[in-house]
Amino acid sequence: MRKYYITEKISRYEIGNPIETEAVINKGDKNYPGDFKYFNIEIGNEINLNYKMNKDDKVYGLGQNMRGINKRGYIYESFCSDDPCHTPEKKSLYGAHNFFIIEGSNTFGMFIDFPSKVTFDVGYNVRSNFHINIEGTDTNIYIIEGESLKEIVHEFLKIIGKSYVPPKWAFGYIQSRWGYKTGNEVEEIANKFIEKGIPLDGICLDLDYMDDYKDFSLSEERFSDFSSLNKRLKENGIKIIPIIDAGVKIEEGYDIYEEGIRGNYFAVDKNNNPFVAAVWPGKVHFPDFLNKDARLWFGRKYKGLIDNGVEGFWNDMNEPAIFYSEGGIEEAYRNIDELKKLELNVDSFFKLMDTVNNLKNNVNDYKSFYHKTENGLVNHYDVHNIYGYNMTKAASEGFDTIDENKRFLLFSRASYIGAHRYGGIWTGDNSSWWEHIVLNMKMMPSLNMCGFLYSGADTCGFGSNIDPELAIRWNQLSIFTPLYRNHSALGTKDQEPFAFDLEVEKIIKNTIRFRYAIIPYLYSEFMKAVNNSDMFIKQLGIEYQDKLSKEVEDQLLIGDSIMIAPIYEPNKRGRYVYTPEDMLLWKVKDHTSKDFEIIKKGHNYIDIDINEFSVFIRKNKMLVLGEPAQSTKDINSETLNIIAFVENEAEYTLYDDDGISNDYKKGINSSIDITISVDRDKHNINAVNKGNLEVKRLNVTIITGEGKIISDVVNL
Amino acid sequence: MRKYYITEKISRYEIGNPIETEAVINKGDKNYPGDFKYFNIEIGNEINLNYKMNKDDKVYGLGQNMRGINKRGYIYESFCSDDPCHTPEKKSLYGAHNFFIIEGSNTFGMFIDFPSKVTFDVGYNVRSNFHINIEGTDTNIYIIEGESLKEIVHEFLKIIGKSYVPPKWAFGYIQSRWGYKTGNEVEEIANKFIEKGIPLDGICLDLDYMDDYKDFSLSEERFSDFSSLNKRLKENGIKIIPIIDAGVKIEEGYDIYEEGIRGNYFAVDKNNNPFVAAVWPGKVHFPDFLNKDARLWFGRKYKGLIDNGVEGFWNDMNEPAIFYSEGGIEEAYRNIDELKKLELNVDSFFKLMDTVNNLKNNVNDYKSFYHKTENGLVNHYDVHNIYGYNMTKAASEGFDTIDENKRFLLFSRASYIGAHRYGGIWTGDNSSWWEHIVLNMKMMPSLNMCGFLYSGADTCGFGSNIDPELAIRWNQLSIFTPLYRNHSALGTKDQEPFAFDLEVEKIIKNTIRFRYAIIPYLYSEFMKAVNNSDMFIKQLGIEYQDKLSKEVEDQLLIGDSIMIAPIYEPNKRGRYVYTPEDMLLWKVKDHTSKDFEIIKKGHNYIDIDINEFSVFIRKNKMLVLGEPAQSTKDINSETLNIIAFVENEAEYTLYDDDGISNDYKKGINSSIDITISVDRDKHNINAVNKGNLEVKRLNVTIITGEGKIISDVVNL
Repeated sequence: MRKYYITEKISRYEIGNPIETEAVINKGDKNYPGDFKYFNIEIGNEINLNYKMNKDDKVYGLGQNMRGINKRGYIYESFCSDDPCHTPEKKSLYGAHNFFIIEGSNTFGMFIDFPSKVTFDVGYNVRSNFHINIEGTDTNIYIIEGESLKEIVHEFLKIIGKSYVPPKWAFGYIQSRWGYKTGNEVEEIANKFIEKGIPLDGICLDLDYMDDYKDFSLSEERFSDFSSLNKRLKENGIKIIPIIDAGVKIEEGYDIYEEGIRGNYFAVDKNNNPFVAAVWPGKVHFPDFLNKDARLWFGRKYKGLIDNGVEGFWNDMNEPAIFYSEGGIEEAYRNIDELKKLELNVDSFFKLMDTVNNLKNNVNDYKSFYHKTENGLVNHYDVHNIYGYNMTKAASEGFDTIDENKRFLLFSRASYIGAHRYGGIWTGDNSSWWEHIVLNMKMMPSLNMCGFLYSGADTCGFGSNIDPELAIRWNQLSIFTPLYRNHSALGTKDQEPFAFDLEVEKIIKNTIRFRYAIIPYLYSEFMKAVNNSDMFIKQLGIEYQDKLSKEVEDQLLIGDSIMIAPIYEPNKRGRYVYTPEDMLLWKVKDHTSKDFEIIKKGHNYIDIDINEFSVFIRKNKMLVLGEPAQSTKDINSETLNIIAFVENEAEYTLYDDDGISNDYKKGINSSIDITISVDRDKHNINAVNKGNLEVKRLNVTIITGEGKIISDVVNL
Repeated sequence: MRKYYITEKISRYEIGNPIETEAVINKGDKNYPGDFKYFNIEIGNEINLNYKMNKDDKVYGLGQNMRGINKRGYIYESFCSDDPCHTPEKKSLYGAHNFFIIEGSNTFGMFIDFPSKVTFDVGYNVRSNFHINIEGTDTNIYIIEGESLKEIVHEFLKIIGKSYVPPKWAFGYIQSRWGYKTGNEVEEIANKFIEKGIPLDGICLDLDYMDDYKDFSLSEERFSDFSSLNKRLKENGIKIIPIIDAGVKIEEGYDIYEEGIRGNYFAVDKNNNPFVAAVWPGKVHFPDFLNKDARLWFGRKYKGLIDNGVEGFWNDMNEPAIFYSEGGIEEAYRNIDELKKLELNVDSFFKLMDTVNNLKNNVNDYKSFYHKTENGLVNHYDVHNIYGYNMTKAASEGFDTIDENKRFLLFSRASYIGAHRYGGIWTGDNSSWWEHIVLNMKMMPSLNMCGFLYSGADTCGFGSNIDPELAIRWNQLSIFTPLYRNHSALGTKDQEPFAFDLEVEKIIKNTIRFRYAIIPYLYSEFMKAVNNSDMFIKQLGIEYQDKLSKEVEDQLLIGDSIMIAPIYEPNKRGRYVYTPEDMLLWKVKDHTSKDFEIIKKGHNYIDIDINEFSVFIRKNKMLVLGEPAQSTKDINSETLNIIAFVENEAEYTLYDDDGISNDYKKGINSSIDITISVDRDKHNINAVNKGNLEVKRLNVTIITGEGKIISDVVNL
């Protein structure tokens, strides 16, 4: 074990000969002596770590996982998994995010940079013991110290590098469905949004658009005029966002397949033949994303669709999901033939069930193929968690070769820390369950903590059938997540905003329009979080240090100014809300409503009808809103509205930039610095415009600590 | 459609020629004219009912189902289903309980007495519409009117007949596990409870005890001295409770099978041969519980185990569950052979999956066998929901032939209203999920409303692996349900009270001991609910009429005196509680703790540590406690403790009876009438003992409205 110094607060412990994941961009090169801290570490055939937790210690992080913000009491496995049934006992989802923080008698963070399976038993088998098992002997482990949760997260986000930033339009509403079968159908959907005045910035294409599920292909029959379709939709600000799957169909004459074979770009089996698995297209090879040449090759393939006008993609099935392998199905048939000879009893019956049900995503398949990395042949299982990550990287690198200064929308299903620099993620194939609003809500801060700022869940749920009230409540949550996509599976009930009755449609329309109204705020806060290496969506305990703020899991801070308290149960017309300080409650029916109330620090029951949701503006903070529009491109920011809750003085910096280029990385942006102070009968508003050419006027509404409402206009 | 008068408040509408389910004991025979009320009814090939709900209408009931106490917003199917994965989208569980109440602009109850599939779309497809589909044209429908929820429930419970009453020991703690493989293991478990001083009244035997899963058999190898085992355990107050499955193994020489064949006691296929299905024993026949002779035959078979000392049973797999049928498996193999010839693609791959996964509980199998009822041959599908009910009835009738005046413990998995007169139910194969504490909590009042007073969930969850905190919290809830059984599936983590660390063990021990301390209260309240045709576990909205009481779903009333507010989320150390009137909060660490606090009407945040739970004593009500003991037989009731929250005057009647016989049906019981009044500095306690020979002394603790604590002793 070698210890490296990164900063005063961060050490890296290198054990054995770790595989380079590139999760961390500042690994430190100064070797210095020192023992492993906090956890007791045992290195044998595997690495085991143990930490004795105190009664009140809390554990945060681990990104995409089941359960709460505080991860104590359960066991989690980092192993990217395609499992669409997110029941509470699941230990793995699609992402593998090995960063966590313990807050308590010791407060520190730890990142296990290991690309295969890691198990985190957070007081599950033994309540007081945090046990980590690393399935290997070669790893980097980072320990991050700091005075507070906030500082530790900040330090961690600094060493893993800044978050991916999508184009600004990706903060608009995105409609998706597995089952939009033709270009006409897509256009009809788009037109329905326009007719009904429901804002829309993108429509995702699922598998349906492809020719026989072939990556980068287009069904000639169903999407014949794809290029002009893109053009027509983009005139209305609507971008088409196609899916790209990991597996490449094996088919003579299919260019991608043939190029892949010629270039040796596919992962191989033990005989050095391209590994064969079956997924949506039938039999496929998997591009060897861990191989630099293969990655570059695949990345450049996005160009075909981009040349047709596409500006965003989602990468799917990249855990990679495997329906079955050639070896797997042969063995299954052999087993079934044996079983057929028997009079089935309980054991043999369950064996029949298992034989078929274990075909999918079988670990033996993951162990039977290899990647040709710079350091030689590596078994897939040993790098399983960075496969999807490197598909994201492939796409991102590909985009750079096409237009280095253009932002493309990109989000992925599988991920690992490091992938956050190349794309966003969605939280995978959830269900239309009320429990999954809860999961969505609780997962967001954990994802942010692990670097995935541009993220969100399939709004209204992917699997199962939606009920109308769930649709309303889920939209009321998702308007606060950077990725705001409504997506559903083939065969499930429609869940577009207009799939319900007119009252529901109106409520969801107003909700989406509110989202568009707060884009100036969301974008500003998101970009500041990216640039400052901070979280965008935070649990209360990041900003408030009182006991209860550390325990609350059903309220979130969105950026620096606001707190939300979603309704996540059916038939509820109100809920309890904890306010760790005085806050201004805004009950929103639509972005123009003016229903303000000062809520004192403490416990509150807040009535919330089905057609409204609550926004809490923190003390001495302000929220910035513009006017909604049909799409982000139509947003007129000449006048912005400020709602400020000011006991004495509030400051806000409204960040903005061009929203389309990477110039922000060079520090090219604008800001408006706003200071509002209130003192008895006087108020003072000071606004300094640093380069924002759009905004001409601020309509300021100040609610003072005593509840006085002051309206003022500032011309810039 | 013929309308019958039952009472002023209750009408029966007879449509076509309904199958007699015997759900209702007072069907009324006075035919009188009148239209169908409230719902619009259409009778065609099926019956469809529609009701326009107002915005604030609430819908309660439907017994064993997913979702909340208010059933609005989802769709439910009454079709007894063996499906152990209770995810939120499931429409059917094990029971079919077709009674509901709408409370709102109209307030009325309805019972659809139809033994096959009924679908209740409670504003799912159209938010304002309650649509009921009855898959047939012959049914009885009851409409129950009344001034209040409480009155409607009461009227309904009166016409369906009084609840089954178990022996009093069945209010003790019951330990269960699929996987107690031998008599020795069972005795070890029992001894461990005794050693550790954890109360115990019963141990359930799952499949393991049988010889090759044969009903009424005993494994000679593993349970060789069953009779003496029973005797030894019963000396310590511990009863063995074996499982009985619906299916009878086909095996030459097996007496039950041979008798069944000889007597024509099995359900038959279309060729009048006994229908063959496969379940745990391999191939089985299903006793024709809808045939009176078969029912009597099967019922008498319980005698063998009873002669060995058994006093309680649980009936399982009686939906009936079917792993596969002969025809089903043959067809599956044929399909697989066809698929084998193909290069699998997506469609054929999913067909392979479906082929195997659709073997279980396939509706085609339910449609392919018949019952020989008094009214001729009836297809199973048409009476599916009363099959398990009639197994319960078979057992109960059998018990009567053995000892008519003895109470046996009996609970079933499948059920239909009517079965509540013959046995209790447990809520089936739930999981060790926090979501299933919530489900347990919300289901209890719905079950009570449908007549199933003796009921409870598998505490700590059947499937999946428990975490220690979930074990604590679930026990803290289950101590208030009449059936309090901890049960788990083969292969899951142990979840007996001593399966965790010593601190957890101590907490759970104190929790179970508290249960034993409140048995005098629970039994008294349970019996009064039975005798008065009332609910035992109620949602707040039954007793309180304010708006929020109608909405609260995470607090329950247990009997007449107390309210509980369980903790049902991990890592929570407190929760919000709504008190619709002033209440006395008792924070319980153990039954001797004295941590009382008056909570004013309104909203409260209550700190609750992991080793405590809350009990709220209602205003002018009292709670009665005794001393815990190792088993109910050791409970010494010479001295009882009363905790009374008295603003002015509280009355309580403590019911008791012998707890073992059916004499209570003849009105043979005892009571102690207690009246406590408080007036400034005076208090007055009046206790009249009507035949209770055990209780000699009442230790009374009065907490007055002003928080004054008065202790007094009353000798009886």
